[in-house]
Amino acid sequence: MLINRRTIRIEWGDCDPAGIVYFPRYFEYFDICTNALFERAGFFKPTMLKSYGIAGIPVVDMKTTFMSPSRFGEDVIVESSIPKWGKSSFVVQHRLMKGDALAIESFETRVWVAHPDGDPEKFEARAIPSEVKEKFGLPDETQRA
Amino acid sequence: MLINRRTIRIEWGDCDPAGIVYFPRYFEYFDICTNALFERAGFFKPTMLKSYGIAGIPVVDMKTTFMSPSRFGEDVIVESSIPKWGKSSFVVQHRLMKGDALAIESFETRVWVAHPDGDPEKFEARAIPSEVKEKFGLPDETQRA
Amino acid sequence: MLINRRTIRIEWGDCDPAGIVYFPRYFEYFDICTNALFERAGFFKPTMLKSYGIAGIPVVDMKTTFMSPSRFGEDVIVESSIPKWGKSSFVVQHRLMKGDALAIESFETRVWVAHPDGDPEKFEARAIPSEVKEKFGLPDETQRA
Amino acid sequence: MLINRRTIRIEWGDCDPAGIVYFPRYFEYFDICTNALFERAGFFKPTMLKSYGIAGIPVVDMKTTFMSPSRFGEDVIVESSIPKWGKSSFVVQHRLMKGDALAIESFETRVWVAHPDGDPEKFEARAIPSEVKEKFGLPDETQRA
Repeated sequence: MLINRRTIRIEWGDCDPAGIVYFPRYFEYFDICTNALFERAGFFKPTMLKSYGIAGIPVVDMKTTFMSPSRFGEDVIVESSIPKWGKSSFVVQHRLMKGDALAIESFETRVWVAHPDGDPEKFEARAIPSEVKEKFGLPDETQRA
Repeated sequence: MLINRRTIRIEWGDCDPAGIVYFPRYFEYFDICTNALFERAGFFKPTMLKSYGIAGIPVVDMKTTFMSPSRFGEDVIVESSIPKWGKSSFVVQHRLMKGDALAIESFETRVWVAHPDGDPEKFEARAIPSEVKEKFGLPDETQRA
Repeated sequence: MLINRRTIRIEWGDCDPAGIVYFPRYFEYFDICTNALFERAGFFKPTMLKSYGIAGIPVVDMKTTFMSPSRFGEDVIVESSIPKWGKSSFVVQHRLMKGDALAIESFETRVWVAHPDGDPEKFEARAIPSEVKEKFGLPDETQRA
Repeated sequence: MLINRRTIRIEWGDCDPAGIVYFPRYFEYFDICTNALFERAGFFKPTMLKSYGIAGIPVVDMKTTFMSPSRFGEDVIVESSIPKWGKSSFVVQHRLMKGDALAIESFETRVWVAHPDGDPEKFEARAIPSEVKEKFGLPDETQRA
């Protein structure tokens, strides 16, 4: 299973008056990491949207556990992978690591959506092409290896 | 049970190239709504932090379901309440409504934390004063009424 | 000259580890205030973009002076007006007030742009309809009154 | 004169419904680039704040010209330098390049400030240590070379 590791520097503007990351910023990090994972698999989002005629891969469900805070100037690593594929949806798992310690774990369910009839006001789920899924490896590959 | 309703205008800068709210922005809305709920209960966050000697009420767990997107210029209503209190933690529920339709539901578990020994680098859970909890009403009050 | 006054609550997530507003957030406030000024003049941005066939009113030049910081929980007032109209551009002035004191003054030059040939990748300045300018009053009206 | 060059990927969440960077996000980029310039000069901001006993280097004046927009997925380069030092203030220049073309130029005046008497509510300008200025080279060094 493809795992993308990305180092993220915690920036001044991401932190709040308590001196730690303002939690909505983590979801910006994770969204960037999801796009980086797709790029690593060969799907650069701007061209992917056009070539597959989709409007995006919006999040429909999210579960996040915050175990420890991060501060300005720290370098953390986010490990991202897709442990589960459905017909038109998939789950992205992000593990934010501080050294060997897991600081945050988040699971986001996303859907492969298009604008039906080209109407930008509407969104409709579409089947994810198998060629896309294949590039990420089998979800249970690491377990079987 | 105290419920705070807040109207939020979806702003241009909150929306992404798909024309809908970039999902991390919702968590900024919800954080604002949590603070507004406390203010409604009589606890204005800047003075609450000082008077109770706490560092903040950080989120440690979050579960969110996104049912429908929102667009630039829409006015949505977020209903916020605290359905569950623990010794040092509590759950805030946010329901983002578009008219009568529930568009997003989010549950965030937050903890009442202080800096032990005044060390700004450390956080420690503290018991939530009962006078604080009381101002929000009983969680099951609406059901019993 | 039309002036829009908008109260803005400084939110926790807008502040940095120094406890004051992280300066890029002010430009989010000012962008919201520009849109609010247009709405006050009768031009709700989402419908204005469609009815006039424009892509937006992007900022091309900005000058800002920061005189004093703002903190979490403060309510500030932003006074916004358009002191200067050109053929296809205009200047928006924002004055962020803390009580009677001017805390920030910002001038942003914006352009009325469309996508030529409907190409979303291109932007082209267009003449601002006189009916739009008229709704904001004469720039020197307050001085003459 | 020390110049720091930093590549920035334009992310999905930085772009607005017109498909281009929402302009306040540029100031987040520039703030990150100012900190990166200081780090390049040997002053990692979190430790610099502590070792020099300062509260920050807030922006007090800013002038920005936007020449062309940037879109999701583009990699731009920001060149940052300090062309002018005063006793307690300095000017940071940022040039956002798209290939050989200058897309944005911004000048921000920042001040070296401390909390007088350790009062976190107050800010006071302090003289910038000469050892700090020296690490950035002479402002006119490139011209003389």
